[in-house]
Amino acid sequence: MSFAELVAAIQPLDRKEIQEIQNRIDLKTKPPGSLGALEELALSIALIQDSDTLEIRKPCMLVFAGDHGVAKHGVSIAGSEVTQQMVLNFLNGGAAINAFCKANSMEMKVIDAGIKFPVDDTPDLISQSAGLGTDDISETSAMSEDQLDLCLQQGAEIVEKQITAGSNLIGFGEMGIGNTTSAAAVAGTLLTLKAEDIVGRGTGIDDDQFALKTRLVNKALSRAQVSQPKDALKELGGFEIAQICGGILAAAKNKTAVLIDGFIVTAAALAACRIAPACRDYLLFAHHSMENGHARLLEELKATPLLDLGLRLGEGSGAALALPLLRSACAFYNEMATFESANVTV
Amino acid sequence: MSFAELVAAIQPLDRKEIQEIQNRIDLKTKPPGSLGALEELALSIALIQDSDTLEIRKPCMLVFAGDHGVAKHGVSIAGSEVTQQMVLNFLNGGAAINAFCKANSMEMKVIDAGIKFPVDDTPDLISQSAGLGTDDISETSAMSEDQLDLCLQQGAEIVEKQITAGSNLIGFGEMGIGNTTSAAAVAGTLLTLKAEDIVGRGTGIDDDQFALKTRLVNKALSRAQVSQPKDALKELGGFEIAQICGGILAAAKNKTAVLIDGFIVTAAALAACRIAPACRDYLLFAHHSMENGHARLLEELKATPLLDLGLRLGEGSGAALALPLLRSACAFYNEMATFESANVTV
Repeated sequence: MSFAELVAAIQPLDRKEIQEIQNRIDLKTKPPGSLGALEELALSIALIQDSDTLEIRKPCMLVFAGDHGVAKHGVSIAGSEVTQQMVLNFLNGGAAINAFCKANSMEMKVIDAGIKFPVDDTPDLISQSAGLGTDDISETSAMSEDQLDLCLQQGAEIVEKQITAGSNLIGFGEMGIGNTTSAAAVAGTLLTLKAEDIVGRGTGIDDDQFALKTRLVNKALSRAQVSQPKDALKELGGFEIAQICGGILAAAKNKTAVLIDGFIVTAAALAACRIAPACRDYLLFAHHSMENGHARLLEELKATPLLDLGLRLGEGSGAALALPLLRSACAFYNEMATFESANVTV
Repeated sequence: MSFAELVAAIQPLDRKEIQEIQNRIDLKTKPPGSLGALEELALSIALIQDSDTLEIRKPCMLVFAGDHGVAKHGVSIAGSEVTQQMVLNFLNGGAAINAFCKANSMEMKVIDAGIKFPVDDTPDLISQSAGLGTDDISETSAMSEDQLDLCLQQGAEIVEKQITAGSNLIGFGEMGIGNTTSAAAVAGTLLTLKAEDIVGRGTGIDDDQFALKTRLVNKALSRAQVSQPKDALKELGGFEIAQICGGILAAAKNKTAVLIDGFIVTAAALAACRIAPACRDYLLFAHHSMENGHARLLEELKATPLLDLGLRLGEGSGAALALPLLRSACAFYNEMATFESANVTV
């Protein structure tokens, strides 16, 4: 399937059942609305799954890693070698996302989308590298059109494969030194914002680095005058961001729920929604990141995340932490008695 | 053990390990502080469990049900018969708390602490009723001193039993038509607030009921001039609130973590902390309820709950939903690599 065919195949949710689903929620033995965000979550999952019985089946966290040419300026607390080190940490089970996926019964896969210092082949790593890091977005296009197309296609393919294997929920995570800079540039151009309104401190940079990062993002935004969302990814994105975007599009095409993590994944999600607006229907938002620009992205996507825990790690950590709430939403929808069946006379 | 002995046996946490625990968290492969509230949670659990390996073992939700004389005025969306109906719903597995406990692998027990219309004996119900509902707090004491002592003792005993059976985390939930009125009165007197500052809409009363509820709470506060926290429970409390208070004290005595739910359980927790301030060290706060007065209670207890999902159901629902975050906090503390062990050079 070509990318154009993939995009054309993405259909909005059929909302004709919405009143029936809402009625079912309202007849449960609880005051109407008293489960707050869990009720909206159950409604969203019921619309996506289009089934009387909701289920989170083989949930899978796909962690995409990529490097960024712009990192050479020192816009992060660490250098690009740390992307490789963290990929090895993921593969060895030592990172936060490993602990959270294990604790919450979520499968986890690690993808080399294009890191600067590749790791030796191992059966646990999915290698679909588009290159040894992007070019410096403050100077030139992040990637070629061919690289972008490859990223979108490969991101889509891994999600298709996971859905074929039985997953009905895909979480996205990322790792890449410099990727909040790239994500801020992508978000800035899609939202027509200046760097000042979207750049944040990533994992914890100091004032000088923050000023530098802001200058570089403004430089990138001035350089790349884009009119199409795909161009935003090509000019300003990262290999991991583009693969995530492709993956989100594929999940939406398959009417499969997507669990969105923090700033970087949300920037990829906005790009996906600009490419195919119907994507939005399949997105569930896990958490509100501490990263400055995340609130802007969430506002644009009319999204209220489930968690607000002050996280600023990435990796998909917030998505893995939110997963049990999805299971609880399914559980109350499936299992709670109605006022009538339980003889409750409120 | 007498109640006085129980209270005397409650010791604050030994905080001498706090720097060592914080160092261990800071050496994990993540930017310092980047796991936000999860880091504080892991620190709290590590202090409470005083162990190198953290674990949530046999977590148990105790749901206490009780009725309230003040309910006869119509301060709730339902009458006292609904307390009985919901107890039956709990026993039949049809309530929200059943679904959430099951989804999150939490044992659940239902306790008749004093409902107006008792249900037939069943092996699944723990009967420790202090009476057929409290008296009307707007007119007279909620309960006698003997009833209060019995409630505190029986609440403590069931927690002791659960801890002996291997639980190292106790969640508290409640059901009782009229119990936000009682909890508001208890909180109002402990915080020296007028009803206007603490009364909320419970599960969803209208303006007239809200005005009536406020008047009745002010009347109760004027009637009962209490100087001791135990008197607040005797004059204004409920049988379920008093048993929860006893249970929290027993958990603290056993250095066992307690997961606090919404407004009513938090009011019981404040009473427990006034009786024995060291209690506070063992409390983990699950969620921020929509109930008006909850924020006041949380502020007084210097508590920032994990979740804010717009819940206003009670039953322990927020506590059951937060449980997986506790497991994730333990998981990252136990399992994450250090910068050194993973060769990560940030």
